[in-house]
Amino acid sequence: MSSVFDASVLAPHVPPGMPENLIIRPLAKDDFSKGYLDLLGQLTSVGNIDQEAFEKRFEAMRVSVPNYHIVVIENTETGKVVASASLVVEMKFIHDAGSRGRVEDVVVDSAMRRQKLGAVLLKILVSLGKSLGVYKMSLECVPELLPFYSQFGFKDDCNFMTQRF
Amino acid sequence: MSSVFDASVLAPHVPPGMPENLIIRPLAKDDFSKGYLDLLGQLTSVGNIDQEAFEKRFEAMRVSVPNYHIVVIENTETGKVVASASLVVEMKFIHDAGSRGRVEDVVVDSAMRRQKLGAVLLKILVSLGKSLGVYKMSLECVPELLPFYSQFGFKDDCNFMTQRF
Repeated sequence: MSSVFDASVLAPHVPPGMPENLIIRPLAKDDFSKGYLDLLGQLTSVGNIDQEAFEKRFEAMRVSVPNYHIVVIENTETGKVVASASLVVEMKFIHDAGSRGRVEDVVVDSAMRRQKLGAVLLKILVSLGKSLGVYKMSLECVPELLPFYSQFGFKDDCNFMTQRF
Repeated sequence: MSSVFDASVLAPHVPPGMPENLIIRPLAKDDFSKGYLDLLGQLTSVGNIDQEAFEKRFEAMRVSVPNYHIVVIENTETGKVVASASLVVEMKFIHDAGSRGRVEDVVVDSAMRRQKLGAVLLKILVSLGKSLGVYKMSLECVPELLPFYSQFGFKDDCNFMTQRF
């Protein structure tokens, strides 16, 4: 089973005591058939991505340096991916040719809410980011989620501007 | 001269009518000796990066897919890099396995202010982002810079949270 990043990099950051049916692991190439894109569809528009397109993008991420650290939770009872969050690392020249990390695409299956799976993933990503040596981690969120993310050490910072094409 | 990304990708986005002594081009490997890190030092902490460390990071960015689109302006009269701005592209599964772009590390030499070099670079990055097909471009800024960036199509959006290690 091909992983989008090395499972041994993730292992030290996975908390003990998870329910037996919930496996935390890197995104895998066969998660196309485990509902990964349906899960992302609960977050935003995914569009029509067939298996070939999924695997092509997966492969581009897998060989990327730094890796795309896409962490998922699979419910082994249903064989479905039920939560996902990503730590994307950007190389810099500033801060001693350092790197910064971004928390991206956090989503928990609506049927699996209130089990703190989002919190589990956030703690993992922050711990992983520290271990990778990023000098800063950041995320974008709606105002309603400020209290949620503040639990994991994030503080409201500067302005964030966007434009869409 | 090695470029951090293909100069032919940049060329269509460079405006005509620049002063003859100002060359707009991708960051090059020999910009270590042209004051690139001193320029970044006007933005934030750079630390001690020797030529070997610079070239190592440069090479990692150069071979990265997607590329790090670091655009600089060189003053050929002084042989110094006097402005820089970067477009960093992140691959996604969402939005039809799309990509988003981020404007990073915008800096203009304090001796070269009021010549609209920042505006020149921003227009280039937005044009480049569109041509690369990113579905969204974003940036972080202090409130004082909202009017500046709004000129290039950016609008104040959601909250932005950070933590530093």
